[in-house]
Formats: sequence, structure tokens, C-alpha cells
Amino acid sequence: MKKNTDKEFKVGICGLGTVGEATLMLLTGENSNEIRHRIGASICVSHVATRTLKPELTKNVPCVGTDPFVVANDPMVDIVIETIGGYDPAFELIKQALANKKHVVTANKALIAERGNELFEMAEENNVVLAFESSVAGGIPIIKGLREGLAANKINWLAGIINGTGNFILTKMTEEQRQFDDVLKEAQALGYAEADPTFDVEGIDAAHKLTIMGSIAYGIPLQFNKTYTEGISKITPEDISYASELGYAIKHLGIANSSCSGLEMRVHPTLISKTQLLANVDGVENAILINGNAVGSTLYSGPGAGGDATASSVAADVIDIARYTLAGSSKPVYPSLGYQLRHKNIQVLEIDDVETEYYLRIPAMDEVGVMAKISSVLQAHGISIEAVIQKEPVSEVVPIIILTHLAKEKNMVLAMQAIENLEEVVGDINRIRVESF
Amino acid sequence: MKKNTDKEFKVGICGLGTVGEATLMLLTGENSNEIRHRIGASICVSHVATRTLKPELTKNVPCVGTDPFVVANDPMVDIVIETIGGYDPAFELIKQALANKKHVVTANKALIAERGNELFEMAEENNVVLAFESSVAGGIPIIKGLREGLAANKINWLAGIINGTGNFILTKMTEEQRQFDDVLKEAQALGYAEADPTFDVEGIDAAHKLTIMGSIAYGIPLQFNKTYTEGISKITPEDISYASELGYAIKHLGIANSSCSGLEMRVHPTLISKTQLLANVDGVENAILINGNAVGSTLYSGPGAGGDATASSVAADVIDIARYTLAGSSKPVYPSLGYQLRHKNIQVLEIDDVETEYYLRIPAMDEVGVMAKISSVLQAHGISIEAVIQKEPVSEVVPIIILTHLAKEKNMVLAMQAIENLEEVVGDINRIRVESF
Repeated sequence: MKKNTDKEFKVGICGLGTVGEATLMLLTGENSNEIRHRIGASICVSHVATRTLKPELTKNVPCVGTDPFVVANDPMVDIVIETIGGYDPAFELIKQALANKKHVVTANKALIAERGNELFEMAEENNVVLAFESSVAGGIPIIKGLREGLAANKINWLAGIINGTGNFILTKMTEEQRQFDDVLKEAQALGYAEADPTFDVEGIDAAHKLTIMGSIAYGIPLQFNKTYTEGISKITPEDISYASELGYAIKHLGIANSSCSGLEMRVHPTLISKTQLLANVDGVENAILINGNAVGSTLYSGPGAGGDATASSVAADVIDIARYTLAGSSKPVYPSLGYQLRHKNIQVLEIDDVETEYYLRIPAMDEVGVMAKISSVLQAHGISIEAVIQKEPVSEVVPIIILTHLAKEKNMVLAMQAIENLEEVVGDINRIRVESF
Repeated sequence: MKKNTDKEFKVGICGLGTVGEATLMLLTGENSNEIRHRIGASICVSHVATRTLKPELTKNVPCVGTDPFVVANDPMVDIVIETIGGYDPAFELIKQALANKKHVVTANKALIAERGNELFEMAEENNVVLAFESSVAGGIPIIKGLREGLAANKINWLAGIINGTGNFILTKMTEEQRQFDDVLKEAQALGYAEADPTFDVEGIDAAHKLTIMGSIAYGIPLQFNKTYTEGISKITPEDISYASELGYAIKHLGIANSSCSGLEMRVHPTLISKTQLLANVDGVENAILINGNAVGSTLYSGPGAGGDATASSVAADVIDIARYTLAGSSKPVYPSLGYQLRHKNIQVLEIDDVETEYYLRIPAMDEVGVMAKISSVLQAHGISIEAVIQKEPVSEVVPIIILTHLAKEKNMVLAMQAIENLEEVVGDINRIRVESF
């Protein structure tokens, strides 16, 4: 790694959106003195590249322009912060900065999850740090916790509420018994959800973050395309209410689980016991519960998004790089994804082979013998029942709620098809997985 | 720092009590391969020193004896783990190891809190790491979170449940409406509390941990003697019940708070809103809520004690030291207490000058005008009332429950004396602080 002798680190910020602007304020504002006391050196924002110039924000920054590659190519810059987002030009920009042997800090979860393997390889070749704490769970230092704090553990599993938009919607649906579409509109009005909410509500954003955490937890390459993803748009207030009656809350979780047949990586709505701390993490908050074989379960919660919270993690990465450098490290202290030696024989399971418990809501005619028929279909597929709720009918159709014991997904899919083919069953089954941590 | 070229780190464990034994098992057992993959080098336990030899545990350890100074003096040893506990011989042992330029990892919160300043100075002089993650909140990587993950923040305040024994007792008192003494006996029978429970229930253990966190949060020397400490032995099931009626849980918290007049460092029972995640951390679990000016509030929870959980943090420190060394660092990457440059002008406030809200339970005769008298005493001391509960009397004596707005401790002490001197007041007031995070 480059030596730094003048005790000042020159940082260039590329992208002045919400996170970039907050990072600029954090590194140059009232906290800069505290940061200097912690590091024993100063962080100086020497460059800003922004599509739209914002002179009121950058009046104390010596080099301001619109081309981020100027930042990546300036020999003066020690650390490039990429807060542009998206794939293009962020990918080429990071590559250029790494090729120039500059450390890079990014908040770009999509880019890290989908193209991180190539970037980390390049960082390693150039002996520089590519840091990404802010890419998962915003202000919560979860990458550090997992990669460093829990480094002596085999990770049995982790489960996280890692999309604030989704958690906000589910919380509102729970507290106010409202429909998904209705709450989504409110979230959009409040700026918590995008005009096109697909990334958040269909679980893609959560899958990006889970992919990153899974890689660090298990020493495997980033494999976004193997992460199973299911959104929350089919959850109804009725499901939430039945789950509650059974002692569960519904949360949208990213789960990585080391089972005996392989590694599970999956994002989906999940019933979890209301007695779990995780079940009580509400609104836009994020939280990750990690189970290690030595420590047991530890939980990390806090703001998973927002400019200032995310900037806190971006700046922490910058501070770490300054500290490594000042300690005279000749190469990065931590392997980016937590492992110097990768595990080569760990396979991510297809969702078909994943075993969980299930909640089923089956819309059926109120006729004698329907429950017997459903039970026998489940039994024929090797699925046993743990609990049933069958209410007094208020119309001809009555929902039958079933909690099952552990069942393999492929058996459940077949059983659901067979149940939906019963003549007494009058609509699609709503199926939600259940986890007992 | 010493270079390591043979990619094997030799570790000596001093003390084979609960934590020492668990650390030995963790570093040499089934996780050792995972640890090797993470570091890219092996951790070898080359030495064990134990008062009572335990051959069944140490059969694969080359050097086993009863004298820990042999470990500290052996040139072969890279890292000394101190899991003896107490002050003597732990203090001299750590000094000896540091003088020999060995890195030291300790779980000894009392020693770090009370004599850490001298030890850290010595570590710095000798250019070695003195690590202590396991000394606060067991398996939760809270030192790392505070010192590194939140390094870009000014810490506004932190509040932690950092004594599992106390939390177990308060939880049981809450759930089962039982008296303190009764639950304490159960905790002793279960091994959660010592025969002499003073350290835990009177808050001394929590004050040790708070002292350490406060130093890292604010860049001040360790000042255990300035940490105000109050235990939980005066809490009654009635207090818990009244608090609950007002929407609060009672938790034994360690609180560090940067107020405008100075730094508060205090351990005491506290009413906190039941809607807080922290209020729902039950049993022997620990949790720390930290508020930074950029990130906002983040919470870290998990097992705060126990051999395996504590060993997880001890081993994480060992792994960190190996990683710093392998990166070629010529000095420690992180200043032990988080700051390269200390803050010299931050004073810890006397408890008299601390302002909080208060819960008061006043045993009074059921007579006309008593509430008016109490109100006027409070008013005369500049204390205003937020809420009152006055129940229908079941005997001549009726408890009056008052929640106050912010008041300075010294005014509250005077007001309490004046109220206790009223002829209608027939016993001591139970006074508990209230925090609204």
C-alpha cells in the first residue's frame, strides 16, 4: 500500500446525491475535528465530481468538476468515494481508480453484489482496499461485525430485515390493517419508496445485500444469481392477522443458512415468533440477527438507509483506510470478503431443495370433509401439520390456515398444486415460510 | 510490530477457567480450519498456564505449566491471552508480556477499567496491541463497533444493559412479580449470580464496562472512580408494576451522555419506554444502544457472558492481531481506546450536576392536601410534574407515584428530603431515573 507521510488523506467524492452530499458534510463539517482526533491525521476532501454542480456545497473543495474519471486519475487523490450508484459509469470508475492504485469506498450494493468478484480481484492485484460497509444496512457496521467481530465463528445462519421500504410497508400493514397497495402509495408519497418500487418490494435490493453478507459469512464468491428472491406484494392484512393469532409477525427477511445439504440464500416474507427482538424491529429500521457456533445469536439494528446514516459507514471506511495506512500496513488488513482462502466446495442450494416450515392460507368452500382432503394431500407429500385455524364461516368460502412442520420446497409446490386442484378449493393458496430461530 | 513470516501465530493462554477453557477449545477445535481460511495463517496454542492442571484439555499443547510468567517470558509466544481475571497476578503478567513486546488479549474488565491507562501506555511504548473486546458485553463486538464502525460520529450518548445477572433478576421480577431477594436466590442457584452478588447487583461490574465504553466513545482516559454507580436491590415489584402502567420498563443501564455542561457517566436502574427495543432485551442478554450524531441510534445485542460467547471475542482479538501482522503493519492499526489524540478538556460531571427525569414513589397517609404539599415542595425546588398516579387507598398509607420533568440531581435530593420531612409522608421515597431516548 502507498505510504502516507504528510498525515493528510486526500479524498475525492464522485457523485453528490443524498449519500455523497452527506459524506461531504460529514468529512468536512463539525465532525472533522473528532475524526482527526481518532485517526491522528486529517481527512481532506480535495475533489468532488458531480453531474450537477452545487457550488454552495463545494466552495471549500479545491477541485470540483463533472467528470468522475478526473478524480480517479488525479495522482493527488488517496481515496476515491463512489456514491454515483448504478452500474455505469460506477463500474468503470472503480476499475480506473483501482488500476491507479487508489483505495475505493463505495455504497453501491447492486454493483458489489453483481460485479464485485471482478472488482475485488482487481483491488487485490493492485494491493488497495475496496471498502463497502455502507452497501449493507446503511449505518449499521454489519460488514465489520461479520468479517471481524465474529471471525472466530462458523456462521450457522443469519437473517436480516435489510430493506427499510419493505419493513415500513409491512409495519404499517400490521399496525393499521391496511392493504399492500394502499401503504405502498403512502411510502411513495413519503419518499420511502421509489416511483418504480420493484427493487424494494420484490426483494431485489435485499437480495443484493444478502448476497454480500452470505459471501462474507461463508467464504464463497458473490453469487447474486443464486439468491432466491420473493417479494411482499402478495401479503395481505388477513395473513398478518392470522400469523399474529398464531404468535408470529411477518417480516421480509434475507436469510443465509448453512444446512447439511448445502448453503441456503433466500429472500422472502417470513413468519417469525413475536417474542423475537427481530420481530419488533419496525418502520424503516434494519436489523440483522447472526448465529455463530461459538457466540450464539447477536443482533445489530439501526437505520438501514438515509444520507447521514449511510455517510457514517462511508466515512468509517475512509477512517479505516487511513488507520491501516498510518500503521504502515503494506497490504489491506482484511480480505474484502473476509477470507484469505476461499471455500471451494460450498454449493448454494436451489430453492427446490430448501426445507422450511410453512404457513398456508387456503380459500375453501365451507363443506364437510375438505380439511380431511387437504390433510391427506399434505400427508401424501410427506408434509405434516403443526397447527390449523379454521374460523366460523362468514360466507360460503372459509380460509383454512395451516402451519406445517419442516417440508422441502419441491414437495410443498407439488402439494399446493394438488390442493388447488381440489374442487372445494376456490382460489390460490397464499404460502409464506416460517422460521423458528 | 514483530513480523511474522512463518504464517503461524503462537498463542499462550494464561488461566483455564470458563473463558480460558472455551478459548482453548475454540482456537484448537472444529473452528480452527475456518479461522485459518479467514486469516490465511494458523493460530497455534503453544502454551497454557493453569493453576490446576487439566491434562484432558491440554494434551495437544506443547508447553503446559502453572506459572503464567513462563508464558509471558517465552520468546516463542506471539500473543498472550490473559483469562485469569482479578488484579493479581493479572496486572503484573500483562505488564511482563507487554514489556517483552508480546501482544496481549484480555477479558479482564475490572483490570482494564481500573488500571488500563497504565497498561495501554505500556502497550503503546512497546508498539504492541493490548486487546479487550471480550471485556465488555461478552460476545457482542461492541468495542469494534464503537471504535471503528461509528468512528465518524460524535457520540451523543450510549446506554447499555451490560450486566446479565442484573437483567436476569429484573426480567424475572417483571415477569413473575417477585421480590428482588427471592429472584437473587434463584439466580445464585442457576449460577447466574455469585455467592457474593455485590459486583453484579450493585452495578460495579456494569460501571467497569461503562468506564471502558465511555473512554472509547469520548476520547478521555479511563476514570472508573468518576462513574456514578447505583444498584438494583431497592427495586420492588410495585415499582415495576407502576412503571409498566405508565408505559415504562425498568432496566439497569450504564449510560454515558455528552450534555452541554459535561460528560455524564452513570449506572443506575432506569425507566425506559416499553416501545424501545432495549426495553425488550430480557434475561441474561446484554444490549447497547448508541446514538451518534451522523448515524442516529444503533443497537447491538447478544450474550454478554458465558464461556463460548466470551471466547468468541477473545479469539476475534487474536485473529485481528494476526491480520494486522500479516498486513505488515509496523504498529497497532487502532489506538486501544479509539483516539490517537485525547480530548483533554472533557470533564466527567458529578452526579449532583446531572439532569434527568425522575420516577418517585412516595408512601403517604391518605389525607386531604398531601398531594398539594408535595407539589409545592417540588415546585419550590424548580421541579415540575409530568404525571401522577394516585390509587384508591387499600390501607391508611397510599403510594403516590410521580413522574417529573428534567431536574438536577442536587435539587431532587433536597426536594426528597423536604418531602420525607412532611408529616403525611411515612417512609423513604423510592426514586428511579427516567430516560427518554
